[in-house]
Amino acid sequence: MIAEVVSIGTELLLGQIVDTDAAFLARALSDAGVSVFHRTTVGDNVERMAATLRQALGRADIVFCVGGLGPTVDDLTRTVIADELGVGLRRDEGLVAGLAARYAARGRTVPETVLVQADVPEGGEPLANPHGTAPGLWVESGGKVVVACPGPPAEFEPMVLEQVMPRLRARLGVSAQVIRSKVLRVVGMGEAEAEPLLRDLMEGGNPTLAPYAKPAEVHFRITAKAPDAAVADALIAPLAEQVRSRLGKVVYAEDTVDLETVVVGLLRDRGRRVATAESCTGGLLSGRITAVPGSSEVFGTGVTTYANSAKRRLLQVPSAVLSEYGAVSEPVAHAMAARIRELAGADYGIGITGIAGPGGATEGKPVGLVYIGLAGPSGVSVARHVFGGSRDMVRLRATQAALAALRMALLSEAEA
Amino acid sequence: MIAEVVSIGTELLLGQIVDTDAAFLARALSDAGVSVFHRTTVGDNVERMAATLRQALGRADIVFCVGGLGPTVDDLTRTVIADELGVGLRRDEGLVAGLAARYAARGRTVPETVLVQADVPEGGEPLANPHGTAPGLWVESGGKVVVACPGPPAEFEPMVLEQVMPRLRARLGVSAQVIRSKVLRVVGMGEAEAEPLLRDLMEGGNPTLAPYAKPAEVHFRITAKAPDAAVADALIAPLAEQVRSRLGKVVYAEDTVDLETVVVGLLRDRGRRVATAESCTGGLLSGRITAVPGSSEVFGTGVTTYANSAKRRLLQVPSAVLSEYGAVSEPVAHAMAARIRELAGADYGIGITGIAGPGGATEGKPVGLVYIGLAGPSGVSVARHVFGGSRDMVRLRATQAALAALRMALLSEAEA
Repeated sequence: MIAEVVSIGTELLLGQIVDTDAAFLARALSDAGVSVFHRTTVGDNVERMAATLRQALGRADIVFCVGGLGPTVDDLTRTVIADELGVGLRRDEGLVAGLAARYAARGRTVPETVLVQADVPEGGEPLANPHGTAPGLWVESGGKVVVACPGPPAEFEPMVLEQVMPRLRARLGVSAQVIRSKVLRVVGMGEAEAEPLLRDLMEGGNPTLAPYAKPAEVHFRITAKAPDAAVADALIAPLAEQVRSRLGKVVYAEDTVDLETVVVGLLRDRGRRVATAESCTGGLLSGRITAVPGSSEVFGTGVTTYANSAKRRLLQVPSAVLSEYGAVSEPVAHAMAARIRELAGADYGIGITGIAGPGGATEGKPVGLVYIGLAGPSGVSVARHVFGGSRDMVRLRATQAALAALRMALLSEAEA
Repeated sequence: MIAEVVSIGTELLLGQIVDTDAAFLARALSDAGVSVFHRTTVGDNVERMAATLRQALGRADIVFCVGGLGPTVDDLTRTVIADELGVGLRRDEGLVAGLAARYAARGRTVPETVLVQADVPEGGEPLANPHGTAPGLWVESGGKVVVACPGPPAEFEPMVLEQVMPRLRARLGVSAQVIRSKVLRVVGMGEAEAEPLLRDLMEGGNPTLAPYAKPAEVHFRITAKAPDAAVADALIAPLAEQVRSRLGKVVYAEDTVDLETVVVGLLRDRGRRVATAESCTGGLLSGRITAVPGSSEVFGTGVTTYANSAKRRLLQVPSAVLSEYGAVSEPVAHAMAARIRELAGADYGIGITGIAGPGGATEGKPVGLVYIGLAGPSGVSVARHVFGGSRDMVRLRATQAALAALRMALLSEAEA
């Protein structure tokens, strides 16, 4: 099966947004063994959209239209698809009811302009969009399939995974060749350090192994092609095992599982709770922990003591310590970690204090300097880091290092 | 002048990399007043590359080929361009010398495979690449221009700015047009509500006005084309003024200025400080505020009281209130906001409590229900919201609504 992708939106041609949807969809199609030979981006212009869709239908079995499904006059995808397939549009009563309910929940009535989003080409079916008002479309006509999805990634990605791919797989049946991949996620070891340990493994043809540097971690992706998923997975498993055994504990998870999810899971398994005291990260660490559904079992209390007065008042960090060593110092990180653990009645306490930049550097204390204190059942330790990058990057890296340190403590605890 | 962009590389079609080059080039072309109507991505396949280049040459004056200039057998761009233009390739002695010097500096001789990078289509000239081995190409033939640049962004971006754009501007001469744009950022009014107020303004040709829905706000982009920047800006200004006057205070900023930056700026202007008490948002609100450099002037204290025990202990929310109304309730948001304001000695206190999902809904309390309390010099108010979307989206929307409420309070204060 050959697919083609048409990305729609003048803002894409003007470079105002980067087309991450196209790459996301490409990966999903590749995983399903569907080939994509062309991807075209076109603006919000009826004639050019129609010509592009026509060309795509001429050389592919399935065409994906991304974007242009909103409620405004610029949103032309629905009508262009109906026109090119030579069918009319019907207003779907189920969609109208859904839109009405969505607005009613907020005490409002649906504006007439929004109702165009309930229009579906004849013979097509809507794809549910729990994250926005514009439903997607799946239309089969003359042996071809046209799929349309809204452009915002928060709506697009779940729709592709939950609505589009199951229908596509059902249509593909058993004959397709599948491409499967597994990502091993590494924290606490950089690409330059990890790559030499794996270089010989990176020369294979099927499966392949390739590194991807991410902002505060490294991913190693193993990809295999085979007649079916079980065979592909059997190719992947021994290579994954080799990577794990060479890199050791720094491999913290697979695929889309992030570090906060791993740490919350470990805390839950061990029956432990953590509390946080943050200065330069300003609540981002507690924000990451509470991003995990069910984190209330392991996290109850955090403080953002951004000002020295807050460090004194909420955490009883002594004024003498603050004035002698400065707020960004080993003793302050130590006190923050120990005190929040005590205050919250938690098993672990994390204290973070640092200089995120761009201002704030002083003699001997550069931008990026961060102290991370970890208080646990067996005492308090403080690590000193100097992170590179922008203010946002320093803050992200600090939360990542804090989670990595807590993970290592929880792993050691299990071994003890 | 009409340009078209052809991005070349199977890894793009597989989604292994996101095409940031295309957006970068699009912005550069748009700034120079060059229109782009189509962008096509094609894999490392001679026939499809040739057909795509032919189609692009048929409808554009200048075609940019990005990628496929490396030394491997996959790198076909050079030969496809020469074939489509019907010219031969000559080996450029200057490029050969440059490659030899580059390798000699590392004590090596140039491999024969790398020398293909010194091949230039007859009549064309190479574009210097100080950041890699593959030079770019600028070839004029039959009134058309074909430009080729290597794909790695660290090589591509400087080549576009330093080599391509000066040649392009010289070719455009004085008749060139610039495209300028301004974004008006709106919070607290959805696209469907705002668009009818602006519909007539969205029908203009130059400048144009178009809405873009973002996760928790709406952007209206005004774009004008003119002989120079001053004329373009003069076209934009009156339309921006009309949008502002029709939408009112919900327009909170222009271009890339985000809501937390606006709110921190307002607090600083008024000499006010804010403190935060967060439950379902888990520290993300304080995280956003402290993302703004210099926010320590206006923010010192935040607490994440995720557990009821933390709400009782850190904020003295009475047990009776928690048990009678539940943690997600108007009285709890009220108490959190009032108490954190008092505790921190701040001018404003924000309290957020809600159900981010996916679990946690109860009879009468759906996922997405969030109460936001705002305590200020003139008392405490609580707003009830029901936000749609995923857990992450509910949390983001809650922080956005809290910042929007604080902004409105600060604006009213100035008027009082």
